[in-house]
Amino acid sequence: MTRRRSGGRAGRKAADAVEKSADYSKLRHPFQPQSLFSEDQIAAIHDSALIVLEELGLKVLLPEARDLLIKAGAWAEGDMVFFGRDLVNEALSTAPRSWIMNARNPAHSHVYEPGALFFAAAGGCPNASDAVRGRRPGDLESFTDALKLQQHFSAIHKLSPSAEPQDVPVHLRHYAMIRAQLEVGDKAVFGYARGRAQIEDTFEMVRLGMGLSDDDFLNNSWCSTVINTNSPRMIDGPMAQGILDFARAGQTLIITPFCLAGAMAPITVAGALTLQHAEALGAITLAQMARPGAPVSYGGFGSNVDMKSGSPAFGTPEHVKMQLGSGQLARLIDLPWRSAAGSASNAPDAQGMAENDMGLWGGMMSNATLVVHAAGWLEGGLSFGYEKFITDMEAVQMIADLCAPTPGDAAEIGMKALRDVEPGGHFFATEHTMERYDRAFYRPLVADLTNFGSWEEAGAEDAATRATRIWQGILAEYKAPEGCDEAVARVEQFIADRTAAGGASPME
Amino acid sequence: MTRRRSGGRAGRKAADAVEKSADYSKLRHPFQPQSLFSEDQIAAIHDSALIVLEELGLKVLLPEARDLLIKAGAWAEGDMVFFGRDLVNEALSTAPRSWIMNARNPAHSHVYEPGALFFAAAGGCPNASDAVRGRRPGDLESFTDALKLQQHFSAIHKLSPSAEPQDVPVHLRHYAMIRAQLEVGDKAVFGYARGRAQIEDTFEMVRLGMGLSDDDFLNNSWCSTVINTNSPRMIDGPMAQGILDFARAGQTLIITPFCLAGAMAPITVAGALTLQHAEALGAITLAQMARPGAPVSYGGFGSNVDMKSGSPAFGTPEHVKMQLGSGQLARLIDLPWRSAAGSASNAPDAQGMAENDMGLWGGMMSNATLVVHAAGWLEGGLSFGYEKFITDMEAVQMIADLCAPTPGDAAEIGMKALRDVEPGGHFFATEHTMERYDRAFYRPLVADLTNFGSWEEAGAEDAATRATRIWQGILAEYKAPEGCDEAVARVEQFIADRTAAGGASPME
Repeated sequence: MTRRRSGGRAGRKAADAVEKSADYSKLRHPFQPQSLFSEDQIAAIHDSALIVLEELGLKVLLPEARDLLIKAGAWAEGDMVFFGRDLVNEALSTAPRSWIMNARNPAHSHVYEPGALFFAAAGGCPNASDAVRGRRPGDLESFTDALKLQQHFSAIHKLSPSAEPQDVPVHLRHYAMIRAQLEVGDKAVFGYARGRAQIEDTFEMVRLGMGLSDDDFLNNSWCSTVINTNSPRMIDGPMAQGILDFARAGQTLIITPFCLAGAMAPITVAGALTLQHAEALGAITLAQMARPGAPVSYGGFGSNVDMKSGSPAFGTPEHVKMQLGSGQLARLIDLPWRSAAGSASNAPDAQGMAENDMGLWGGMMSNATLVVHAAGWLEGGLSFGYEKFITDMEAVQMIADLCAPTPGDAAEIGMKALRDVEPGGHFFATEHTMERYDRAFYRPLVADLTNFGSWEEAGAEDAATRATRIWQGILAEYKAPEGCDEAVARVEQFIADRTAAGGASPME
Repeated sequence: MTRRRSGGRAGRKAADAVEKSADYSKLRHPFQPQSLFSEDQIAAIHDSALIVLEELGLKVLLPEARDLLIKAGAWAEGDMVFFGRDLVNEALSTAPRSWIMNARNPAHSHVYEPGALFFAAAGGCPNASDAVRGRRPGDLESFTDALKLQQHFSAIHKLSPSAEPQDVPVHLRHYAMIRAQLEVGDKAVFGYARGRAQIEDTFEMVRLGMGLSDDDFLNNSWCSTVINTNSPRMIDGPMAQGILDFARAGQTLIITPFCLAGAMAPITVAGALTLQHAEALGAITLAQMARPGAPVSYGGFGSNVDMKSGSPAFGTPEHVKMQLGSGQLARLIDLPWRSAAGSASNAPDAQGMAENDMGLWGGMMSNATLVVHAAGWLEGGLSFGYEKFITDMEAVQMIADLCAPTPGDAAEIGMKALRDVEPGGHFFATEHTMERYDRAFYRPLVADLTNFGSWEEAGAEDAATRATRIWQGILAEYKAPEGCDEAVARVEQFIADRTAAGGASPME
């Protein structure tokens, strides 16, 4: 095999050219969704989930939610609510399959529907970690850093709460979290569902920050939250409250049972999916009873528990199988759905990459609408990794790059170039090449393609080490998008007033 | 999100249980092949390749090959051979779509055909590298070590010449290479095409080693070689000789144009594929003219040159696009085909994993029959990496794990288990779990799933560091499969005689 290590004159010239400015802000799935189960088996899983809802029920810890469901036709024994299949079908008939997740910058407003593809960064990490400051409890600085990193990359389509700002008291934390999103970004924002008082504050801040009327806000989705059921078969108080309040306000609910096969879910993929599906359908039903037509995404985050350590495992074959089955179930009920990548690795190394890549490709194969935790999710979500975010973004961008159509016409085939280059020659200097060289290929983010000698001479840095400089560079040069100052200014008084009034404690 | 860090009693018990004995030796593609181009575009690429063969021709540096092609209906000007499309179509009509690649151990004999999935390790690396001995020129020890590692993993389906044994003189090297494969393995062997004298020696050693009659050998495939055309549009002497000799002996030819878009091939995916396709069709035609029905695999290894460094890049979006297009072309001519993964990274880090994962998943999406360089290919193939082999094998195994059907019947759904576990409970102790826990999930090879505290306390080792111990363990405990001693004994006299007679120099 003959190899050329140097591109010669044209190769060097190309290196000086303008970087390819790839725009990954609008992605559609390029691949057909793949199936894990037969249509009969998927129908049986769906039917089993309906039996779970009907005969076993869900424990719903919020009286207001139980009352609403009972009024809609469900029945209850104590905290347990039983859902007839007619009620579930009624909910599925009003749940929309498509809506706009709005952002302050309309360029970042996206239609959330089957076939669309969104990536979101690591969410919900109590800690942050990087090579400079080590691992520490998440704080407002790391929360904000992560937002800047997310805003920087066009392949991240909405903001995520990557590191929990534990240095902000819980009764004031939601102010800081929304404020930071308005301050450094203009993509769709995220709000936690930690009880009605905080949710109402969150909605008001988003409305003020975006400069919206009450009607504008209530009739369109301007922020989203993730609803994790407590598997098995429980919707706790804050989650039930979140479903009610987000649905009533028309804000996006992303339903996400977290079903670890072998722990909080049956050990089989089919069993874990049945549980996930029952819980998701129950939550969707609650949302639709609160407001028919409320934007609610089906979803699931399923993987397995490692039988050796008892720890959650991510990016495993079972994780991908859960994704494939979830995609089939989402298609069966014709709703967009949220999946997740992520890794269990403690370091941004080959393990971390292999795990995350499995979940990213699983999301592609299953046509997930939204792939959460696509970048930066270390330690099964216990840490947001700055270097991990960068190494993951390479994988995300490479996959995003596949979403653009590849031209295949006669000009692309380039018969003239094929004629012009003699056997054993090269194509560096052909017109066909020169016309395209500055935008022909994906431009690596963290990959180092120099040869071994040069790489060793330059210090033999691994990808994680190079990633440190990359996130440092992004943060050092960070410029908030247009309008951030104004957006923050619009919420300052509200935050000051609410803070003076004692803030809002989260729901217990 | 509630998380459990310990599996409790049942979780710990599971850790002591027998390891899941996954058998990845027979794989079929679980996913539908995906398309990059429309059917019209693929037809146009095929047609353009026929025009290249007809009007531009291939330079064929072996007179015997040119004469054979002219006799079959091609025409020539000097070294340039022009192939009419009738001739190509005649070749495609005799090229088999299915044959058995035999191994000494019938358990490792596989049907090579569309739909089957084979993985092979890194091939053709001049250097070897590991964390203990560093990077050094390949030698017989590293060549043999790599064979042992390949033999160890059931997800590697044939042997590859991973590190070139540069400490063996070139006129004797082929004896050492075949001998080592017989000595430590019983999977399908590989022989280089480095001129007729070496090829004849290789065939005789394989025949003797396997204990075959001449007829048995000549009527079945017992070894394979890779034919790299010299892109653009050239088949050099040793490669042409290899095509003739392997075809005539009925041994497997794996045709592999190495088309780097922007360097030895047009900068576009469509153009690079056109060139690849023309070269592959030309080589297949030569093989079929040498012996109609000779087992010859379509193939390609296409990626792009990095425009910044001029170096070959692997595991890029363009690499995957080349795979998708190659798969479409292979399906158009209804032949099995070989693809490749691999990485340009200099280290077994996140970059190396991200790159290799792209090529592995590209092979899945394009239904490649054989994915070469699936493990251990560092530095764009300039080094066989021991640690890289292990970290890559995790990715290979996880993907291989997806090939087995996932049961989805009522027993798997496990309604009884779903009934038995109360809301907020866990499934550890259910009968459904206990019946399955020892084989339910993929068992990690190098992934460490302990929590951050335990991991840090144990030295905070990254995956590459753990990989060192894994390959060391495999090599330390290595036991050659049954029959290796006898196989080697059957070739010793031949090797001694041929060595005494001066060996066989490679073709210049």
